[in-house]
Amino acid sequence: MRRSPWMNTDLDDFRDLARTFCEKEIKPNVETFIANKQVDRDLWNKAGEVGLLCLSIPEEYGGGGGSFAHEAILIEEQARVGDSSWGVSLHNGIVAHYILSYGTEAQKLEWLPKMASGEVVGAIAMTEPGTGSDLQNVRTKAIREGDEYVVNGAKTFITNGAQADVVVTVVKTNPEEAAAGISLVIVPTDTPGFSRGRVLDKIGMKGQDTSELNFSDVRIPVTNLLGSEEGQGFIQLMEQLPQERLIVAVSNVAAMELCFEETMRYVHDRHAFNRPIWGFQNTKFKMAEIATEARVARSFVDECIGLHLDKQLDIPTVAMAKLWCSERAQKVADMCLQLHGGYGYMNEYPIARAWADLRVSQIYAGTSEIMKEIIARSLPAPA
Amino acid sequence: MRRSPWMNTDLDDFRDLARTFCEKEIKPNVETFIANKQVDRDLWNKAGEVGLLCLSIPEEYGGGGGSFAHEAILIEEQARVGDSSWGVSLHNGIVAHYILSYGTEAQKLEWLPKMASGEVVGAIAMTEPGTGSDLQNVRTKAIREGDEYVVNGAKTFITNGAQADVVVTVVKTNPEEAAAGISLVIVPTDTPGFSRGRVLDKIGMKGQDTSELNFSDVRIPVTNLLGSEEGQGFIQLMEQLPQERLIVAVSNVAAMELCFEETMRYVHDRHAFNRPIWGFQNTKFKMAEIATEARVARSFVDECIGLHLDKQLDIPTVAMAKLWCSERAQKVADMCLQLHGGYGYMNEYPIARAWADLRVSQIYAGTSEIMKEIIARSLPAPA
Amino acid sequence: MRRSPWMNTDLDDFRDLARTFCEKEIKPNVETFIANKQVDRDLWNKAGEVGLLCLSIPEEYGGGGGSFAHEAILIEEQARVGDSSWGVSLHNGIVAHYILSYGTEAQKLEWLPKMASGEVVGAIAMTEPGTGSDLQNVRTKAIREGDEYVVNGAKTFITNGAQADVVVTVVKTNPEEAAAGISLVIVPTDTPGFSRGRVLDKIGMKGQDTSELNFSDVRIPVTNLLGSEEGQGFIQLMEQLPQERLIVAVSNVAAMELCFEETMRYVHDRHAFNRPIWGFQNTKFKMAEIATEARVARSFVDECIGLHLDKQLDIPTVAMAKLWCSERAQKVADMCLQLHGGYGYMNEYPIARAWADLRVSQIYAGTSEIMKEIIARSLPAPA
Amino acid sequence: MRRSPWMNTDLDDFRDLARTFCEKEIKPNVETFIANKQVDRDLWNKAGEVGLLCLSIPEEYGGGGGSFAHEAILIEEQARVGDSSWGVSLHNGIVAHYILSYGTEAQKLEWLPKMASGEVVGAIAMTEPGTGSDLQNVRTKAIREGDEYVVNGAKTFITNGAQADVVVTVVKTNPEEAAAGISLVIVPTDTPGFSRGRVLDKIGMKGQDTSELNFSDVRIPVTNLLGSEEGQGFIQLMEQLPQERLIVAVSNVAAMELCFEETMRYVHDRHAFNRPIWGFQNTKFKMAEIATEARVARSFVDECIGLHLDKQLDIPTVAMAKLWCSERAQKVADMCLQLHGGYGYMNEYPIARAWADLRVSQIYAGTSEIMKEIIARSLPAPA
Repeated sequence: MRRSPWMNTDLDDFRDLARTFCEKEIKPNVETFIANKQVDRDLWNKAGEVGLLCLSIPEEYGGGGGSFAHEAILIEEQARVGDSSWGVSLHNGIVAHYILSYGTEAQKLEWLPKMASGEVVGAIAMTEPGTGSDLQNVRTKAIREGDEYVVNGAKTFITNGAQADVVVTVVKTNPEEAAAGISLVIVPTDTPGFSRGRVLDKIGMKGQDTSELNFSDVRIPVTNLLGSEEGQGFIQLMEQLPQERLIVAVSNVAAMELCFEETMRYVHDRHAFNRPIWGFQNTKFKMAEIATEARVARSFVDECIGLHLDKQLDIPTVAMAKLWCSERAQKVADMCLQLHGGYGYMNEYPIARAWADLRVSQIYAGTSEIMKEIIARSLPAPA
Repeated sequence: MRRSPWMNTDLDDFRDLARTFCEKEIKPNVETFIANKQVDRDLWNKAGEVGLLCLSIPEEYGGGGGSFAHEAILIEEQARVGDSSWGVSLHNGIVAHYILSYGTEAQKLEWLPKMASGEVVGAIAMTEPGTGSDLQNVRTKAIREGDEYVVNGAKTFITNGAQADVVVTVVKTNPEEAAAGISLVIVPTDTPGFSRGRVLDKIGMKGQDTSELNFSDVRIPVTNLLGSEEGQGFIQLMEQLPQERLIVAVSNVAAMELCFEETMRYVHDRHAFNRPIWGFQNTKFKMAEIATEARVARSFVDECIGLHLDKQLDIPTVAMAKLWCSERAQKVADMCLQLHGGYGYMNEYPIARAWADLRVSQIYAGTSEIMKEIIARSLPAPA
Repeated sequence: MRRSPWMNTDLDDFRDLARTFCEKEIKPNVETFIANKQVDRDLWNKAGEVGLLCLSIPEEYGGGGGSFAHEAILIEEQARVGDSSWGVSLHNGIVAHYILSYGTEAQKLEWLPKMASGEVVGAIAMTEPGTGSDLQNVRTKAIREGDEYVVNGAKTFITNGAQADVVVTVVKTNPEEAAAGISLVIVPTDTPGFSRGRVLDKIGMKGQDTSELNFSDVRIPVTNLLGSEEGQGFIQLMEQLPQERLIVAVSNVAAMELCFEETMRYVHDRHAFNRPIWGFQNTKFKMAEIATEARVARSFVDECIGLHLDKQLDIPTVAMAKLWCSERAQKVADMCLQLHGGYGYMNEYPIARAWADLRVSQIYAGTSEIMKEIIARSLPAPA
Repeated sequence: MRRSPWMNTDLDDFRDLARTFCEKEIKPNVETFIANKQVDRDLWNKAGEVGLLCLSIPEEYGGGGGSFAHEAILIEEQARVGDSSWGVSLHNGIVAHYILSYGTEAQKLEWLPKMASGEVVGAIAMTEPGTGSDLQNVRTKAIREGDEYVVNGAKTFITNGAQADVVVTVVKTNPEEAAAGISLVIVPTDTPGFSRGRVLDKIGMKGQDTSELNFSDVRIPVTNLLGSEEGQGFIQLMEQLPQERLIVAVSNVAAMELCFEETMRYVHDRHAFNRPIWGFQNTKFKMAEIATEARVARSFVDECIGLHLDKQLDIPTVAMAKLWCSERAQKVADMCLQLHGGYGYMNEYPIARAWADLRVSQIYAGTSEIMKEIIARSLPAPA
C-alpha cells in the first residue's frame, strides 16, 4: 500500500483521530444530513472539541498549529466515509485563512478561536446571481458612510450559507473600479439587514447548505475590512484561490479512491450470468483503468501537496490539478456507476452520490474553462 | 428546420394535440410531480380523455389505432417540456403491447380499454434484487396449483410501480429451467399478497415512481398467463425489448435537442467578462459539437423509426441505437451543463435535471454492456 | 445487409462496373502507387475508357451524365480496395464541377471532354504556404495586363499536383481586397512559368501526389477566368466546398466499413492465449462499438447523399458530416489498429494505412475547427 | 522550470553530455536515418566513445556504472531532438541487463564490454509471427544436442534487427511445456543458419531497423544459455519487462514535452485570419490541456523513476505508467498535430513523426490490453 510522501508518524496519529471522528460522528449521519440539507449544527462543536477545526491555524488563535497536510488528511477521511455535506474544508482551509492572512490582530482574536471551537461557522461569499467566475464584475457594494460600510447586494451558491455565523464577503468598496474596487469585508450574520435565501436544490452535495444570501443596508464597522486598505480584495482572492483549488483536487482524488473501493466490493459481491461481475473481462479492464486513473491522480496531487507544504506550489500548477482531477474523478465515478448497473443509479449506493456530488468540482472554485485560461496565460512563449 | 421523414400531415395534427397537452398538463406541474415522487394520478385520466393513451393499440380495444410514430411524437413532446416523471411511454409502448401481442381476446378486452382511458395504469416487472439484466435467472416463481398460479418473489426498479393497477410480471413457471422456464403473467395489484415497497431514491427521474414490488402467495387465475402455454416469456421479452429500446433512443434524441435549445438560450442570455457567453470561441465550438451530435443521432433514430414502422428494424440495429444515443445524450447533457456554470448544477434549471435523468438510459432496458453483447453476437463472421 | 436508400438498380450496375475496375486496375497496384508516390498515369486513361471519369458531368461534355450517387459509389468502391492514391474524387467531383458550374461554353468544351477521357488530369490549387484554411488571405496574384493575367505565387498541399494537366487556381485578381478580390483561373500546366515543387512526404496517403506548385509570371489569357467577372472566386468556393466535404465524409464512412471488415477477419483468424482474439470479451465489445459507429455514420451520410441528390443539403449540415465522420473514422481506425496488435503498425496491413491515411480528413477541405465555425455561425439564435 | 526530484548535480553534468551528443550526432542526421531505415552503424561507436552505452552496467564490465537515472536522461535527450531511430534504450536498458542479470561471468565479460564500446549492437527477440504478447506460446525451439543447442524458428518486430551483433532470443528448450519450457539464449548473429528478413515497413519509427529474423539450424554452445538452468526464461522476462515498460513511459513523457514545445512555437509563429493561431481561445484551451496532460504524466513517471531507483517499483505500477503514458502521449500528439493544420500531416514537421512514432507505444513491450490484465490481476480483492 503506497504511502503519500508527505505523511509522517505524527500525521499518522492525526489521521487516526480524523478517521475515528468521521466513522463515529459522520458516517452514521450522512443520510440525516442529506434529509436536512445540512449537517447537525453541533457537528461543528464536536469537531472543535476533538481539535478538527482550524487545523492549520496557529495555536495562539486557538487553531491546531498544523499545516495543509492536516487539512488534506481530514478531507481524505471525510471523503472515505462518503460525506460531502460537511463544509469543513471551506471553514478550515479557506475562511479561516482569509482572516489569518489579511486580518488585523483584533480580527484574528475575535474570530479564529470561535471558529476553532465550532462556536462560529464560517462562509465566504463570492459568486452573485449572474456573475459566475467573473469576480471583477461583482455588484455587491460596501459604501463607506463614516465609520461604517453599508453593504447591499446578493450572493448565491454559498457553501455553509445556512449555518454561517460569519461571512467573508466580496464587495465593491469602489463600484467605479473593476478589480481595483474589490475588497473583502467580514459580515457577522446577526447584523441587521443580512438574511438568508433558499438552500439551493442541487444535483448532488445534497447535505450541504448551499444558499443564497442577501444584504440589505447591512451596516458593519469599517474595522471589518480585511486588509490594510480598500481595493486589496482581488489580490487576496488570487492568493487564496490556489489553496481552495488544491482542496478540490485532494477531495477528487480521495473520491476516486473511494469509488474504486466501493466498486471492487460490488463487482466481487454481485453475480450476473452465473458468475461474479468481476469474472468478466470488461469488468477487469474497466477496474484496471479506474485504478490507473486514481493512481496517476494521487501521484500528481501528492506532489502538489508536497509543493504546497514547501510554499512552492504555483497558480498554474494548482489550476492543472483542479482541472485534471475534477474531470478524471467524474470519469472514474461514471465508469464505477456503470459497473453497478441499476444500483449505481440509486442514492442508497455511495457511488450514485459520488457521481452526482463530483460534478460540481468542474465548476466551483473556478470552472474548468477558467482553469484553462489561467494555465494558458502561464505557458512560456517560445524562445 | 429538418422534418423527420416519417412525419406526415396527420401526424402534424397529432403532434399539435400532444404538444398542447404537454404544455398545459405537464409543464406547469413538473415540480409538483418531482416533489411527490410521482405524477398526479389523474394525469392518466386526462390523457386518456384526449386520446393520448394506448396510441398504437387498435381502436377495437379502445386504443388510438395509431402506430409507433404516434408513440414517438408523444415521447418527443414530453421530452420537450423537460418531463421525465410520467411513465406513459412504458404504459403505452410496452405494457399494452405485451397484452396486445400475447393476450387472449378476453385479456385484451379486460385490460386494454381501461389502459386507454387511464382507469388502469400498467407496469412491467422484470428486474429483481440481484439479477439486473440477467433475465434468465429471475427467481420470482408462479407455481401452478389447480387453476391458479401462486406468485412469490420480489421485483425492483419498477417504473410506475407505485401507481400501477396491473403488472405484467416476469416469473418462472418452471424454476428448474433457465430461459425455458420463464413466463409472463398478469397481476392485478389489488390481488391479496401483492404489496409495494419503497419508491426508490434515484439520482434523477425524481418524479417517476420507480418502486419495489413484493409478491407473497399472490394467487391469480391461470388464465392470467400471457401466451398460449408456459415458457414463452423469454421469447416474448426478446420480441418486445427492441421497441422498448427504441423508445429509450427516441427519448434520448429528444433530450439532446432540448439540451441544445436550453443551452443556446442560456449562453445568449448570460454574460461573463462583459460579453454573452456565446461570444467565446469555446462556447461556439462546444455548441457546434452539441448540434452535430444531436443531428447525427436524429438521423439515425429517424431511420430506425422508419424501419420500425415498416417492421424492418432488427434487434442489433436497435441495440446500436440504444447504446449510442444513450451515451451521446449523456455526453451532450454534460457539455451543456458545463456551459451553464454553477446554474447547471441547480435543479431549477432543466439542464441539471436532464443530466441526472439521462444517466439511467445507459442502464435500463438492457445496459450498454448488454447492448454490446447483442451487437457482437450479430456481427457476421468473415467469409 | 442494409442498402443505402439512394441506391437503385441502375446504380447497382454502375457499382458492379466500379467494383470490377477497382479490383482489377487498382487493388493489385496499390503498393506500386505508394512506391511511386503517384498512380500510374494511364490509370486515368483506363478509367476514362470504361467511363469512370466525370461521372456527374453531362454527356454533352463527354461526362457520364450521372449524379453524385455515381461519384459516391466510386468513392466507396475505391475505399473498399484500400486505395487512397488515386485522386479521382477530386478530379471528378470537384475540379470538373468548377468548370461545369462557372465555365463558359468554350471552357467546358475545351476541358471537360479531355477530363472525361483521362487525357487531362485536373487539380485545384487553394492552399498556400502559410494560409491554411484562411482563403481570404491567399497571396497568389493574377494581375491583368491587356488580354492576359500574369500569375505569380506558390501553392502547396495540391492533390494530383504532380500529374495535373490543368489547375483551377485560386488567385487574387485584386490584391487590395479580401474575399472580394478572389477569382478562380484555369492554368494549363504546360504554360511557361508554371512549375511543380516537391511531392510532399506525408504521414499517409503515400500514393497520392500531393505537391507544391509554383507560378512565376505565368501568362494565361483573360478568357481563362472562371465566372463572368473578377471577384467571384470566394462565392464559387463557398458553393463548391460542400460537395468536396461530402466527398470526404463518404470516403470516411467507406473507410470505417473497410476497417471493420478487415478487423473482423483479423480477430477471427489470429489466435492469442489459445483462442481466437474474437473469443475475448474486450474484442467483442470493441467490435460492437466499431460496428455501431460505422452504422450511425452510414445512416447520416446516406441521408446527406439523399439530400444532396435533391439539392437540399445545406452548408452547415455537410460541415457536420465532414466534422463528425472524419473524427469517428479516425477513432474507428485507431480501435481497429489496436486490435491488430503489432501487425496494426505494419504498412502491409490495410488497417495501418487506413489509420495513417484518415488523419488528414480532419484537416483538408477545411479543418475541424473551420467546420465548427461554420456550424456555429448557422445555429439559430434563441427566440 | 520544474526539476525532476531524482535529478542531482552529477546527473546535470551527464545530461549536458547526452544533450550535446544528441544535438551534434543525431539531430542533423535524423532524415538520413529515416531514409536508410537505420542509424549509421558508427553512431554506436561514437556513443561508446563518449560513454553513452551501457550506462547502468557496472564499470567492471565496461559500463558507465550509473543507474536507471542515466538511462532516463538519455531517453529524454534523444526524444528532445525528435529521434526515434536509434534503438539505444533497448541496447542499454534491456539487452545488456539480461546479460548482466542472468549471465555467467564469462558471458558478461564476453559481451558487455563490446556492447559498451559500440563494437557489438544488441537485440532481444521475443515476438514471433502469430504470437504477439502471448509469450508462453513461442514456437522457436532450441533443442539440445550434446553441447549445443540447435535453434529453429522465426522472430519478427525485432528492434535493432538489421544491425544486431548479438540477439538474446526467447526459445523453447522444452516445447512440451508452456511457460516452464521457455529459456533465453544468446545468439551471435554471425552464427551459420542465422539470417535477417525484411526491415519492416511501419507507420512510424521509420529510422528504426525493426526486422524479421530467421533461425535455421543455428548451432550455439549450451554455454550460451542465460541462467543457471533451462526453463527460467519466463521468469527472467517477467523480471526485466518492468524496466522495458518504464523506458517506454519515460520516452512517452519526453515526447509529450517535445510535442508541447513544437506546437507552442508553431501556434505563435503561424498566422491565420490575421492573427497568430495562439490568439484563438480554442488554441489556448488545447495548449492548456496538453500542458496539463504532460505535467501530470511527468509527475507520475518521475515518481516511478524514483521508485525504480529505490528498487520499489512494482509490476502493476509500471504497467499503469506504460498504459497511461502511451495513451495520453498519443492523445497529446493528436491534439498537437491538429493545431498544426496541414503541416501536421507533413513528415518534415516533428509533430507528424511524433504522432506516427508514438502509436506503437500502446502495442510494444506488452499491449495496453496486456497492461490491463496485469493491473487487474494485482488489484486487491475487497475485504
